[in-house]
Amino acid sequence: MLQQEKDNLVFKALANETRRTILDALKPGPLTTSALTELLPDLDRTTVMQHLNVLVKADLVIVERRGRERWNHLNALPIQAIHERWIGEFAGYAADRLAKLKRDLESR
Amino acid sequence: MLQQEKDNLVFKALANETRRTILDALKPGPLTTSALTELLPDLDRTTVMQHLNVLVKADLVIVERRGRERWNHLNALPIQAIHERWIGEFAGYAADRLAKLKRDLESR
Repeated sequence: MLQQEKDNLVFKALANETRRTILDALKPGPLTTSALTELLPDLDRTTVMQHLNVLVKADLVIVERRGRERWNHLNALPIQAIHERWIGEFAGYAADRLAKLKRDLESR
Repeated sequence: MLQQEKDNLVFKALANETRRTILDALKPGPLTTSALTELLPDLDRTTVMQHLNVLVKADLVIVERRGRERWNHLNALPIQAIHERWIGEFAGYAADRLAKLKRDLESR
């Protein structure tokens, strides 16, 4: 697959609020599809599965099968690639430092 | 505007290959709309302006007017926010280090 096609899958996957909420839910750690469905009471299991499939095709979620369970992991690499594309390594360090400084000042 | 609405503007702006190419062109530094149109020979000026307007509404591009010129600047803050949302400060540092290590190893 061309990089441009991969990028399209990533950005179209992220252009949906429900899928962003699913990624938020997976940030602290992997969840089974059942646990994820319980966390999102507005959605039925079929809808959650459909959104997960879009995220898996975009490589934003990696599925690990353990017996009959399906554990969904957030994959940070495509997110890191967005950062590298438009901010880059050194500017990214500076931006991190600035964001930290802002938080420190706001927490005083 | 709610944060969710702002996020929708950002991700819908990024979900278009031409707009991503415009941001790539602005990464090294700001450009006038004329200079940007020259860099993108497949697009006419009206199309470039339309895409720029979507990027400005998403706060991904900031416009600076100097006399009759319109200088377009890439704004990295919404990109940094994507990184912070799903990677976070400390994991981001680790991810940066890993990406650097990978580049170092590949360049040997």
